[in-house]
Amino acid sequence: MARLITGIGELTTNEPELGTLRSAAVVLDDDRVDWVGPAHRAGPADERVDVGGRAVLPGWVDSHTHLVFAGDRTAEFEARMAGEPYSAGGIAVTVDATRRAPDDVLAGNLARLAHEARMQGTTYLETKTGYGLTVTDELRSARVAARVADEVTFLGAHIVPGECAADEYLDTVTGPMLDAVAEHVSWVDAFCDTGAFDEEQSERVLRAAADRGLGVRVHGNQLGPGPGVRLAVRCRAASVDHCSYLDEADVAALADSWSGAATGTVATVLPACDLSTRGPLAPARALLDAGAVVALATNANPGSSYTTSMAYCVATAVLQMGLTVPEAVWAATRGGAKALRADSGEGAVGVLREGARADVHVLDAPSVTHLAYRPGVPLTWAVWCKGVRLR
Amino acid sequence: MARLITGIGELTTNEPELGTLRSAAVVLDDDRVDWVGPAHRAGPADERVDVGGRAVLPGWVDSHTHLVFAGDRTAEFEARMAGEPYSAGGIAVTVDATRRAPDDVLAGNLARLAHEARMQGTTYLETKTGYGLTVTDELRSARVAARVADEVTFLGAHIVPGECAADEYLDTVTGPMLDAVAEHVSWVDAFCDTGAFDEEQSERVLRAAADRGLGVRVHGNQLGPGPGVRLAVRCRAASVDHCSYLDEADVAALADSWSGAATGTVATVLPACDLSTRGPLAPARALLDAGAVVALATNANPGSSYTTSMAYCVATAVLQMGLTVPEAVWAATRGGAKALRADSGEGAVGVLREGARADVHVLDAPSVTHLAYRPGVPLTWAVWCKGVRLR
Ligand SMILES: [Zn+2]
Ligand SMILES: [Zn+2]
Repeated sequence: MARLITGIGELTTNEPELGTLRSAAVVLDDDRVDWVGPAHRAGPADERVDVGGRAVLPGWVDSHTHLVFAGDRTAEFEARMAGEPYSAGGIAVTVDATRRAPDDVLAGNLARLAHEARMQGTTYLETKTGYGLTVTDELRSARVAARVADEVTFLGAHIVPGECAADEYLDTVTGPMLDAVAEHVSWVDAFCDTGAFDEEQSERVLRAAADRGLGVRVHGNQLGPGPGVRLAVRCRAASVDHCSYLDEADVAALADSWSGAATGTVATVLPACDLSTRGPLAPARALLDAGAVVALATNANPGSSYTTSMAYCVATAVLQMGLTVPEAVWAATRGGAKALRADSGEGAVGVLREGARADVHVLDAPSVTHLAYRPGVPLTWAVWCKGVRLR
Repeated sequence: MARLITGIGELTTNEPELGTLRSAAVVLDDDRVDWVGPAHRAGPADERVDVGGRAVLPGWVDSHTHLVFAGDRTAEFEARMAGEPYSAGGIAVTVDATRRAPDDVLAGNLARLAHEARMQGTTYLETKTGYGLTVTDELRSARVAARVADEVTFLGAHIVPGECAADEYLDTVTGPMLDAVAEHVSWVDAFCDTGAFDEEQSERVLRAAADRGLGVRVHGNQLGPGPGVRLAVRCRAASVDHCSYLDEADVAALADSWSGAATGTVATVLPACDLSTRGPLAPARALLDAGAVVALATNANPGSSYTTSMAYCVATAVLQMGLTVPEAVWAATRGGAKALRADSGEGAVGVLREGARADVHVLDAPSVTHLAYRPGVPLTWAVWCKGVRLR
């Protein structure tokens, strides 16, 4: 069924040839964008929706979340805000609760948070395992995730669970655990950072993934300077996420990863996590200036960043990281799509053009600028996800 | 009609004797709180509302907004985010548009933004004139404001309009303009800062207000260090707002203003404005540590802070200004009420106790901590304002 969206105040297409259009229209046909262009040239449609001068943009692509979990860490957050230092050990609390939770509790939490994200304009959602950390619990997590998320990442290498030695645990991660989850996931991730896995350990995980034909990504440089970024670039990871502590060589490596190549390693910055852990904000401005590709994501998880609000990430990137509004909006849509290598071809996300997935976000504002100009105000007015109107 | 609210996960009363209650209930009778206490002791009621374990707190008191305006300053915001310096001259753009706008345009903008604020839990709203700056236009502004806002502040001394000399303009402000607006406003404010009015000029305005029995407040220390805070304390202003540039003497003066007195001068901090102008965040932590009384407000206006989201201000105060969640929630409710001297007696706001105004905010979260733990997520689940359910 063809739906024609008209009355658009400003249309952000994220398509270089189209750019930002005024007096534009979009035609959706089932789950695809059928046509984008000037309103006066739009063809007939079964249904017409006039959005009354509001801004239209592609749905958010949230390329980094951890939504398969159980348990509560409100008290840890309160303690941190009262001045106690952040401890990666907090993850173990969630691991314990996740292992104890039946599948329907995990599925219920994920469904609730995915719904919350979609009601705020997120139409393409990645989520990770990583709170099971046994073969059984990682498999349960991957299955639950695959039923709801658009992309699932296996993060067995999140932390070493208390009952294991690191190298023994990695034998499991790279062997039976990876074998068990492989059919449910498209990505494998390793947390390469101070207090998590070192470069060699992380590389073992990424190599095992690549051997099975899975894509790879890295959590890196969140807690301190380190080898995460360089490892990610060397292993041609689709993204390296956090990037709070980068040196000039890291920035250059991320930029260079795109030179002469169709794909490189996206630097995914997670401003809500940076603020929620009172860590430094990732140097997104410097990354863009150097020519790197930047994505914005929520890192939604109950420990370090319990928000599903991509709009909050966009506002923070503009107000506090020095991005312009178009740069931040691009990073939260097409940037995320590039981080998931879902930005091109039929069914591409993060873009509004013929053949893209029909993921449309309408703001109760005349321009995307209002996302940063009006921080905290809930601006999502309508959402189509795969052509289905969600609100 | 008596309404009983039960199923409360956590009740923030802001009343020292009651504190935070669990398994609590609240009874509203028309526009007043009739009773607050343990659920098992609640009496009968005409209507029962079970909020399903959600957190309940007093409605936000937004003690600082500028919502009587016309025109658009999106382009100025975009320019500032692209690195151009903030100029107070931007106010003149809004003055020009406001003067040209008929009353119903001003009223429409105010109604829309007040509604937006209320849907986000703001149940007591101050707003200011200050974009008219002629006798006629300030009077129009005050009348429009008085129909919608709970408290109206006359801000003739916002800037010197282009067509006037400063001292001549102040003759008008302290004479015919103040005479015209006096019946519609309860407060008079002066912008005592670099590029606005100096200490002597500001004091003239405050003295003229006091002579007419009106309360006084000050915009001070936003753009640089200066005499605003000391002037406010000397004139027994109910609040001095912004406070981004304070020295130790300013902090001490604000704390001292409360010693041995029933009321002093509240330091109202405006974090959304600080971020939106890329200015320094006001030293709210240092103010609390020194014993000052702090309020949080939005400063909603089209130039320097175009948000109505008190939740964003609370989250920012916790994540970035070092306040605990209870401190930030108190500042955004009872702190605002103290800044408007509406915190005590029958019909008090910012507090849930017998006799307070029936302004109740229910979050879609089990505790107020989620306001900072989940930044950007729209958490307002229900709002009663003067006993009337708004959502
Ligand atoms: Zn993560
Ligand atoms: Zn102001």
